[in-house]
Amino acid sequence: MDRHFDEELKELKEKLIRMSSLAEEMIENSIKALKERDEKLIAVVFEKEKAINQLQIEVDDFALKLIALRQPAASDLRFIISAIKINADLERIGDLAINIVERTQDLLKEPPLKPLIDLPQMAAIAQKMVRDAIDSFINKNPDLAKDVCRRDDQVDSLNDQLFRELITYMLQDVKNVNRAIDLILVSRHLERIADHATNIGEDVYYMVKGKDIRHHKEDGNI
Amino acid sequence: MDRHFDEELKELKEKLIRMSSLAEEMIENSIKALKERDEKLIAVVFEKEKAINQLQIEVDDFALKLIALRQPAASDLRFIISAIKINADLERIGDLAINIVERTQDLLKEPPLKPLIDLPQMAAIAQKMVRDAIDSFINKNPDLAKDVCRRDDQVDSLNDQLFRELITYMLQDVKNVNRAIDLILVSRHLERIADHATNIGEDVYYMVKGKDIRHHKEDGNI
Repeated sequence: MDRHFDEELKELKEKLIRMSSLAEEMIENSIKALKERDEKLIAVVFEKEKAINQLQIEVDDFALKLIALRQPAASDLRFIISAIKINADLERIGDLAINIVERTQDLLKEPPLKPLIDLPQMAAIAQKMVRDAIDSFINKNPDLAKDVCRRDDQVDSLNDQLFRELITYMLQDVKNVNRAIDLILVSRHLERIADHATNIGEDVYYMVKGKDIRHHKEDGNI
Repeated sequence: MDRHFDEELKELKEKLIRMSSLAEEMIENSIKALKERDEKLIAVVFEKEKAINQLQIEVDDFALKLIALRQPAASDLRFIISAIKINADLERIGDLAINIVERTQDLLKEPPLKPLIDLPQMAAIAQKMVRDAIDSFINKNPDLAKDVCRRDDQVDSLNDQLFRELITYMLQDVKNVNRAIDLILVSRHLERIADHATNIGEDVYYMVKGKDIRHHKEDGNI
């Protein structure tokens, strides 16, 4: 493998790390905007979305160019194709953070329904899952990848728990219904972010081990 | 391009069409199992999941081999990489059909909460979206791909509508809560199936037009 190709692979990794940082910041800021009722942070998330969309196209084009021009050997090819898939997952994570701030815009029009403890906790787990999934990719670490997949259950069970709690709020008072629905949606978006991190973990594990841990079901949770 | 490679591309397309047929049948059977309260159909869906999982690995391996051995030109490369992405979407659609039959197993333990009209309608739209998305890929038809993406809104709004209706069932009688939650989940799984079909449509449009219609947001619906 020539030196130039090595540098190009390094550049691909760096671009993906930047994608991941943006996605992580979007998750963090979107939940902080909700928790601290901070409208300025909403604007920050929308700004970052532009950047992540631009970068996604860049990464895709760069990866395709690498395959076409360098005709990489099997293991490098597998790595580059994983990068393309991971890139798509990171972009969708950004979309989901946008969905969270849209719900937040709605929620900030009314007083808080309940203290927010579970959502920031879910967000922190999901954010760490994204970071570790990308780490596992960059360092070809199948154990870390598998660990990310395992953590998906924590997010699912927090999501279930919160869903049931919010249903009781709705049953108590019909005035709670709209806010409860918005919070259910935020929780659902976080759960989907964790799913995307899990997809990345599965891809990495498959890439490194050549084995398939993908055939578990998508969570049946709320 | 040599004749052999042409045949290999044809084989790749055929494998994807088989994946898609399986996914479509799983959607159809899972909702039919729920509507007709037919436990035998639940078993059929579980059987098909094994087949789709097996086929997914086959398609992935075949596509990677094609890239590695044939070193295809840019447009063929783009086609094969799209096939890899679409393959992943189809497999996840199968997972979501499994989630639907799991909810159905629960729902069949109690009498029906309400007549099922909206869910079969959503399922029919989602199933057609999957079929047309794959058609648009095989025939490199960007107009059909775009049309698939447009139909996502119909599914989203049916999903929203049903969610709100089921909330009123919960508010009416606490005995309805469990079944209403199960139906909300089924509806949500159908909405995610439509999202995957939309992802495929976006990939196809990008592949054919080289343009990006991907940067709309993931639906903010329920």
